[in-house]
Amino acid sequence: MKRLAILGSTGSIGTSALAVVDAHPDRLRVVGLAAGRNSEALAGQILRYRPSIAGLADGDRGHHVRDAAAACDCQALTGPDALAGVATHPDVDLVLCASSGTAALEAVLAAIEAGKTIALANKEVLVMAGQLVTSAARRRGVAVLPVDSEHNAIHQCLHGRAAGEVRRLILTASGGPFRTWPAEALARVGPDDALRHPTWQMGRKITIDSATLMNKGLEIIEAHWLFDVPSDRLAVLVHPQSIVHSLVELTDGSTIAQLGVTDMRLPIQYAFSYPDRWGAPVRPLDLAACAPLEFAEPDVERFPCLTLAYEALGAGGSMPVVLNAANEVAVDMFLAGRLSFPAIARVIAGAMSAHDVQSLDTLQTIRHVDRWARRRASELALSLELQV
Amino acid sequence: MKRLAILGSTGSIGTSALAVVDAHPDRLRVVGLAAGRNSEALAGQILRYRPSIAGLADGDRGHHVRDAAAACDCQALTGPDALAGVATHPDVDLVLCASSGTAALEAVLAAIEAGKTIALANKEVLVMAGQLVTSAARRRGVAVLPVDSEHNAIHQCLHGRAAGEVRRLILTASGGPFRTWPAEALARVGPDDALRHPTWQMGRKITIDSATLMNKGLEIIEAHWLFDVPSDRLAVLVHPQSIVHSLVELTDGSTIAQLGVTDMRLPIQYAFSYPDRWGAPVRPLDLAACAPLEFAEPDVERFPCLTLAYEALGAGGSMPVVLNAANEVAVDMFLAGRLSFPAIARVIAGAMSAHDVQSLDTLQTIRHVDRWARRRASELALSLELQV
Repeated sequence: MKRLAILGSTGSIGTSALAVVDAHPDRLRVVGLAAGRNSEALAGQILRYRPSIAGLADGDRGHHVRDAAAACDCQALTGPDALAGVATHPDVDLVLCASSGTAALEAVLAAIEAGKTIALANKEVLVMAGQLVTSAARRRGVAVLPVDSEHNAIHQCLHGRAAGEVRRLILTASGGPFRTWPAEALARVGPDDALRHPTWQMGRKITIDSATLMNKGLEIIEAHWLFDVPSDRLAVLVHPQSIVHSLVELTDGSTIAQLGVTDMRLPIQYAFSYPDRWGAPVRPLDLAACAPLEFAEPDVERFPCLTLAYEALGAGGSMPVVLNAANEVAVDMFLAGRLSFPAIARVIAGAMSAHDVQSLDTLQTIRHVDRWARRRASELALSLELQV
Repeated sequence: MKRLAILGSTGSIGTSALAVVDAHPDRLRVVGLAAGRNSEALAGQILRYRPSIAGLADGDRGHHVRDAAAACDCQALTGPDALAGVATHPDVDLVLCASSGTAALEAVLAAIEAGKTIALANKEVLVMAGQLVTSAARRRGVAVLPVDSEHNAIHQCLHGRAAGEVRRLILTASGGPFRTWPAEALARVGPDDALRHPTWQMGRKITIDSATLMNKGLEIIEAHWLFDVPSDRLAVLVHPQSIVHSLVELTDGSTIAQLGVTDMRLPIQYAFSYPDRWGAPVRPLDLAACAPLEFAEPDVERFPCLTLAYEALGAGGSMPVVLNAANEVAVDMFLAGRLSFPAIARVIAGAMSAHDVQSLDTLQTIRHVDRWARRRASELALSLELQV
C-alpha cells in the first residue's frame, strides 16, 4: 500500500490522480490532500477520501476545509505553509506535486528533506529550482519521478539503460494550434484561438505555452535537471498526433520511443506504481486506428520562445527563473487581451537581456530574481500593450 | 575484444556483420568464418580477416577455401560438419548464425553446448527446433540474442523490464509489395512482382515470405521461443514505412517501440555489443525527414499464411516444422514460375492438415518430420502446378 499526498488535488492533474486512486484502492491510500484556493472542491475530496491531513494555501477561504476535516478526524492546515505541512506528514510515502506555479517549491523541498518520493507534475519547480531540488534529492537519496507525459515517456525509455548508451533525448511537441499558421497570421491571433489545443485538454496557461512552444522550452529545462543531460543533447520534434510522447536516441543510432493514448492517468499511475507497473487505467493504444504519425522540426522563426528557453538553459543560474517569470506575466497579459501573441516572446527576450545571471544557492535568491523579472516583464509588456 | 564466428559469412547478413567488424577493429575479432557453397567469396574473406578456422559445408567446392586457409595459418574444414566445427572452436566467444535454411541447426546446438553466446539471424533454427534450442540455452546459461530487426527491436524494448510488465509483443510488418492489391490480382502475380520488396533489400526466399506475410508468421513463432510469450499475446501490425521495427505493449496500456533506419548493421552490432552499446554504424534516424508512419491490422483474408503460422504455433510440437518445410517447397515452386501466389498457402494448409502432431525431442525427429512435410508439400504443389 502506497500512501500518497496530493498537492493540487482539485486541479486537472489532481483529479486524474484521484481517479487512479479509485482504480487501485488496494494499492493506494490518500493520506494528504492540498489545494491552493478551491476550498469547496477540497472539502468534498476530504469527505470522500478521508485523508489524515488536508491543507489550503489560501487561509482566507479555509472554513469549508476546516468543517470537512472536523467531520472526519482529519487535521486541517490553512495558509502559506499548508502545502509543506501536508507533504511532510509522517505517514506519507509519495508526494504528487500537481500544484501549478511556484507555490509548491517550498513544499517539494521540504518533502525531499523528509525523505518522501516525489512525483512531479509541476514545471516551475525544476525550471526555477532545478539545481536546488536535484541536489537535495541526490543528497537524501530521494527519487523524483516525472509525471509530465514527455518526461514520463523518457523515464520509461531510459529504464535499465546506462547513461553512456544515450545520445539525445527527443521531446515531442504537438506544435499547438498555430503549427501551420503563417507568421503574419500569428500577429492577429487572440486568446480564444490559442486556447484551442489540438490534442490535450489542459489549463489556460499551459495551453498558451503550447501555442508559443514555451511549454516545450520549459520541458527542455526540466529534462536537463531530471536526466542530467546537457542542452545540446536535448531536442524537440513536432508531432501533431501526440501519440509518441517522447523518444531517446541511443549511441548506435537506434531510437526508443514511448507511445500511448493522451490520458494523464497513464503517466500518473506510472509514477505511483514505479518501479512496478499495474493494470491499465486506460484503453491500450490502437495504432491501427490512429492517423498516420507525422514528425517535423520545430520552426523557431515563428516560435522564438523555444530558442529563448535554450538560451536561458545555456546561460544557466538564474536565467531560467527570468524566462519563466517573464513568460507568466506575458501570458497573463495575452489572456487578458492586452498583448499580441508575438509580443509574448518579445517581453521574455527583453527581460532576459536586461538580466545579469546570478547563481541560485537559496530559495530567497530565486524569489528575489522571480520578483525582479515579473516587475521588469510587466514594464516591458505595458510598453507593448495593445490599444484596446 | 569479442571473438566471433560467423556462420553464413558470404551472405547478406554475413557481409553486413563483417562491415560491423570493420567499424570496430578494436572490439571485434573474427576467429571463425563459415559458408555453405560460395567458396570463392569465403576464400577472399579468409585472406582478408585471417581467422583461426574456416569451414565450407559443400565439401566438393573446398579447394579455394583450403588454398586460402593454407596461405594464412588457418584451419580449414569442409563438408557437412564444417559449420559446427567453426562454431565450437575454443577461441570463439560469440557465434553469429546467419546461414539460411536448416543446415545451421546442428551447429547452433553444438555452439550452445560449448557455451558460446548465440546471435541468431536464422529463422529456421527456432521455427524448427525452438524447444530444443531454448531449453539447451537455458540449461547451459547461454544467451540467444536476436538479429532479425523485429526481435532485436523487442529485445531492446524489453531490456530491464519484468516479464509481468508485458502484455503483448507487437511485430511490425511492411506488408510486402501486395499490401494494397485486391485478392483477384494476387492470383496473377509472378515472381518478379513479389521480389520487389518496398523497404528492405533481402534474399529471394525471404522476400517472397514477406509478400505472403509468412515471414511475419515465422517471426511470431520465433518470438514465442525467444521471449517465452504465448501466441495470444503476440500480434502483428502492418507498418509500410518499416521505421518502427517492433513494439512492446505493457500492462498499463503504455507502449514502447524501437525505431531506426532499415540497415541490418544496426541489429547485428547490437547483438555483438550487448550488453554494451557502441557508436553508430549507421546514421541516426531523422524522423522529421521520414514519410508519416502508418499502421494497419494485417488482412488475413488476403494473406492466409499468417493465420497458418498462428495455427502451427497453437498446434505446437512438430507442426511448425511442417509449416516451414511446406512453405519452402511452395516458395521454390512459385519462384520457378510453377505455382500461383495464392497456391503457396494452399500447399502449406494441405500439408498441415495431413500431419499428426508429434513432440520434438530430438534432431532426428525434426529431420524426419521435415522430410515428410517436404514430400507431402511437393505432391500437393504438383497437383496445383500451373500449366506453363
